[in-house]
Amino acid sequence: MATTPQQQATGQQQQWHELAQQLRVDSIRSTTAAGSGHPTSSMSAADLMAVLLADYLRYDFSHPQNPYNDHLIFSKGHASPLLYSVFKAAGAISDQELMTLRKFGSRLEGHPVPVLPWVDVATGSLGQGLPISVGIGLAGKYLDKLPYHIWVLLGDSEMSEGSCYEALELGAHYKLNNIIAILDMNRLGQRGETMLGWNADAYAARARAFGWHPIEIDGHNLDQISAAYQEALRQTDQPTLIVARTIKGKGFSEIENKDGWHGKALPSDMAQRAIAELGGERNIVVNVHKPQSAEPLKHDATAPLQLPRYDQGSSVATRSAYGDGLKALGASRPDVVAVDGEVSNSTYAETFAKAFPDRYFEQYIAEQQLIGSAVGLGVRGYQPFASTFAAFFTRAYDFIRMAAISRANIKLTGSHAGVSIGEDGPSQMALEDLSMMRAVFGSLVLYPCDGNQTADLLRQMADHRGISYMRTTREKTPVIYGPGEQFPVGGSKVLRQSNADKVTVVAAGITLHEALKAYDQLQSQSIAIRVIDAYSVKPIDARTLLQAAAATNGQIVVVEDHWEHGGLGDAVLEAFSGTEEQPVPQPLPKVTKLAVHSMPGSGKPEELMNAAGIDAAHIVATVKRLVG
Amino acid sequence: MATTPQQQATGQQQQWHELAQQLRVDSIRSTTAAGSGHPTSSMSAADLMAVLLADYLRYDFSHPQNPYNDHLIFSKGHASPLLYSVFKAAGAISDQELMTLRKFGSRLEGHPVPVLPWVDVATGSLGQGLPISVGIGLAGKYLDKLPYHIWVLLGDSEMSEGSCYEALELGAHYKLNNIIAILDMNRLGQRGETMLGWNADAYAARARAFGWHPIEIDGHNLDQISAAYQEALRQTDQPTLIVARTIKGKGFSEIENKDGWHGKALPSDMAQRAIAELGGERNIVVNVHKPQSAEPLKHDATAPLQLPRYDQGSSVATRSAYGDGLKALGASRPDVVAVDGEVSNSTYAETFAKAFPDRYFEQYIAEQQLIGSAVGLGVRGYQPFASTFAAFFTRAYDFIRMAAISRANIKLTGSHAGVSIGEDGPSQMALEDLSMMRAVFGSLVLYPCDGNQTADLLRQMADHRGISYMRTTREKTPVIYGPGEQFPVGGSKVLRQSNADKVTVVAAGITLHEALKAYDQLQSQSIAIRVIDAYSVKPIDARTLLQAAAATNGQIVVVEDHWEHGGLGDAVLEAFSGTEEQPVPQPLPKVTKLAVHSMPGSGKPEELMNAAGIDAAHIVATVKRLVG
Repeated sequence: MATTPQQQATGQQQQWHELAQQLRVDSIRSTTAAGSGHPTSSMSAADLMAVLLADYLRYDFSHPQNPYNDHLIFSKGHASPLLYSVFKAAGAISDQELMTLRKFGSRLEGHPVPVLPWVDVATGSLGQGLPISVGIGLAGKYLDKLPYHIWVLLGDSEMSEGSCYEALELGAHYKLNNIIAILDMNRLGQRGETMLGWNADAYAARARAFGWHPIEIDGHNLDQISAAYQEALRQTDQPTLIVARTIKGKGFSEIENKDGWHGKALPSDMAQRAIAELGGERNIVVNVHKPQSAEPLKHDATAPLQLPRYDQGSSVATRSAYGDGLKALGASRPDVVAVDGEVSNSTYAETFAKAFPDRYFEQYIAEQQLIGSAVGLGVRGYQPFASTFAAFFTRAYDFIRMAAISRANIKLTGSHAGVSIGEDGPSQMALEDLSMMRAVFGSLVLYPCDGNQTADLLRQMADHRGISYMRTTREKTPVIYGPGEQFPVGGSKVLRQSNADKVTVVAAGITLHEALKAYDQLQSQSIAIRVIDAYSVKPIDARTLLQAAAATNGQIVVVEDHWEHGGLGDAVLEAFSGTEEQPVPQPLPKVTKLAVHSMPGSGKPEELMNAAGIDAAHIVATVKRLVG
Repeated sequence: MATTPQQQATGQQQQWHELAQQLRVDSIRSTTAAGSGHPTSSMSAADLMAVLLADYLRYDFSHPQNPYNDHLIFSKGHASPLLYSVFKAAGAISDQELMTLRKFGSRLEGHPVPVLPWVDVATGSLGQGLPISVGIGLAGKYLDKLPYHIWVLLGDSEMSEGSCYEALELGAHYKLNNIIAILDMNRLGQRGETMLGWNADAYAARARAFGWHPIEIDGHNLDQISAAYQEALRQTDQPTLIVARTIKGKGFSEIENKDGWHGKALPSDMAQRAIAELGGERNIVVNVHKPQSAEPLKHDATAPLQLPRYDQGSSVATRSAYGDGLKALGASRPDVVAVDGEVSNSTYAETFAKAFPDRYFEQYIAEQQLIGSAVGLGVRGYQPFASTFAAFFTRAYDFIRMAAISRANIKLTGSHAGVSIGEDGPSQMALEDLSMMRAVFGSLVLYPCDGNQTADLLRQMADHRGISYMRTTREKTPVIYGPGEQFPVGGSKVLRQSNADKVTVVAAGITLHEALKAYDQLQSQSIAIRVIDAYSVKPIDARTLLQAAAATNGQIVVVEDHWEHGGLGDAVLEAFSGTEEQPVPQPLPKVTKLAVHSMPGSGKPEELMNAAGIDAAHIVATVKRLVG
């Protein structure tokens, strides 16, 4: 007997409801088993995710690399129990695995990480999912040109993060109708009510003011949810923000809409009552709609790489070589893309942008979004190069930290490093970037001193999977290496040496040239020094440093245009330390650090480098003191 | 003969115009003399500042400490030539000093810094002036309860920074009608048009959506400017955003509204033509309206400080001791105030908030604003304590960096540091905070291991002027020190020592307890170690470390719940390095670092500390290897 449309609707609603209840029950079961976690923040969004999973998501869970798959990002990463319950309902993980939530060694961590193949990026630091979705959206609309959507589950507390508004403005600017953000407005944050509570109109007004298409719904009304998804999917030039009014802890009357239940697993007796009230355990497996099937996108090189070549003896700023090198990479590799924070004429990202406008995405002055976009582009298999003033990457440190947890593949280049930028003064001087980037898990930290070295290091950044950082210099510097010379990551160059060396001077970037000047001055006074170009700050070339220390009675002077903490000096010291497995190497060095140790002002580069005590004169004075 | 109102208005307009032209001319003269700087970004806002200076600002330039003074913040710090021209027009600086702009040693740096007494905070990293104004606004409305206003000059490019929206939402939430933000919408950013160009309605819609009172004007129409200021001053429960449509380079027809003139000084021939077109040099000195006069506010202690006391042998989380200690400080000192990023029930800032609700300002999940508010409260002479999870201070690193340039007085405490937080996983684990904070100019970095130590260090943070950071622990730890014991900043405690010590183990915070366990285990195997509690990570206690190294044959093991780069291990190594003036100390140490070197997941604290290789078992194994 055929069912009427009315009956069909009722049947569908019932299916959605059953699925939603299962997601709630599983969120409770898994967190109670774990003894911690966020059941109530999962329960508020269960209806939203049930309808999505049952009817709107296009995802082949057995082929997470299918390029037509939608993306599902839990920006509110603490709702991971809900996400994992969704994965169970999709048949992707077993109930047994679900119950390993938060246990040592489990893939189901307290917050999602991409050790799970259906998780694109780590979340848990709020306000990052939306910016990353913009990066994926850019790839989808302008590069892949594929019909997938990015579904982003947002918490209401995280809407106070400025990064969300960077995402809103860029998402609208680029007309990313492939983004459908779902705001789980459950009113309650960690320690009480959010700033806006249940004021859906306020969220909608913000979305509208930023150029998004807002839809206000009751987040527990299954029909409204479904209608909202349909409306969102019809958008052609605007991203959508669905503002869904929900109830934290929805489905278990004892804790619904109650303060004090954020991030708390239910004790087992309460969990039993909750599961009973929710209709008991279920094991529904949804046959999630699959998109058309395809192999992962390939981006093979289209031409041999022809790096820029600078004549020895000429002068070029390494930031300018960055632009040239990036353009060369772009000509060879179609997967190289670039983003910049509205300073492309300073970082020279514009050299690439002019050559490949289709692969350049201006991010304006929104550094968190800059990294978010890079991470998102990386999710889609591109090789994203992001640039701004090195100082302004500090604005996005949390995004970079999280990118490491995301196992993201992003390449960062910061220009205008150190006091040597001159007149602009300290606000524009990166003096902590080496420290900041060394402390990023698995990062490369590179600091070239000339144009040819910049180009070769850039080539290696393109090949590297992970997070890499290059520090470039504002001022022109002499080209000291020949074109085509290789500078392996983890290596260094011994530029001056003799059997009579009394001191090893380790430098990189702008100070390398000061070290060479110091060498000349000292040589004229018959004092020989060894000069090492430590262009690879992390990993540092411990072997060469040890050899040099042995050759110069342990005397090492490190000179850097950076605060005295956490930079090249600390990297050199690290080379002489041991670990649990690795003995402390010999000989023990006597390391003298020349670094910036007072607040700089404005002035000419040479005045500021002298005032900071990091120019040739100070190297000479230090070496002479050391040799007595 | 009396003038008619019409003539008065015309006369006033003429005065405003003349002043504005002077500000333009002086911006050109000073930048041309400097050979760099931002004349065009100054010229667009000259009319706005002329009317403000002539008629609306209340400021006694001869008494910048007068608590009734308005505040004038150039959030677009690159318009410093305009600011300095305003100071000249106010009679605060001479024309001769104006011409020192950007020269080495001048107070007039490329971007404003508070070495000038009329500058509250350093700007130059965009999007920070508005968040800081919220902090000043909170002080003005709720603490000082004084009628001053905060005038903030914003660039349009910086309105893409998410931090501006954090300021908008908090400014509206706290009904800060004392903030009058002036958006110099000159359409052109550094490398081209801004995202919104001259779309004043869009800016106004955003402001309205966030709860601000927007006013759209022609920023070169002096009457409209004046009317807008009057309207803004009439607001009683909303901050105002004046969206002023302006022309970059206004007043010099050759460059008005032209691309390619951002941040460029005019060559002298052009400057001459510009000055001629602007009517030549002037030396108008405005008699700026002074507010009522008063002595700087005093906040003397109202009661003796009674720090919390914990019994030796009990257990308390240092984060909980932070809350207790802060409450104690609050009871003694009326200038102690607190802000927190919506996690006060985790950081225990709520202990203070409940005791002193009038001195606590919730900042929700907006960490950039969290620091901005702290800096602003510090501008008004308060002792602001800001807290969130230690990991989330990375979100505000640029604000912290700039706070150092601002010579700000802020006290930061980050909870939930390291893998020892357990199940929540890496997104919530601060593993780079020590590195990040060590690289902040002039910072203190403190890491207590027990409740009494926390309290005593907190006392010293309150007394310290500058940026201080305390890292607290999620888990309860044993109270090992007696109440009342002192822990001087820059010191350390030698907790275990004998003449037979073979190795020195340096630890802090959570790992100190692991070191003590390791001591016991090793002692039972007749291996003596020295144990040092390095609670002061910066400055590090070099003297004690050197003594220990001498006593234990140079063998030092450092163990920390932090990535292996930039943290306590590097701080210890630093103690054994020299500087230009300071010889490398002897003996040279053999430093073995135990730190987190692989990506953690979820698990129990003890499981994760073991997996990271930083628990007692790994200390024991390392020591045994070292002693052979």
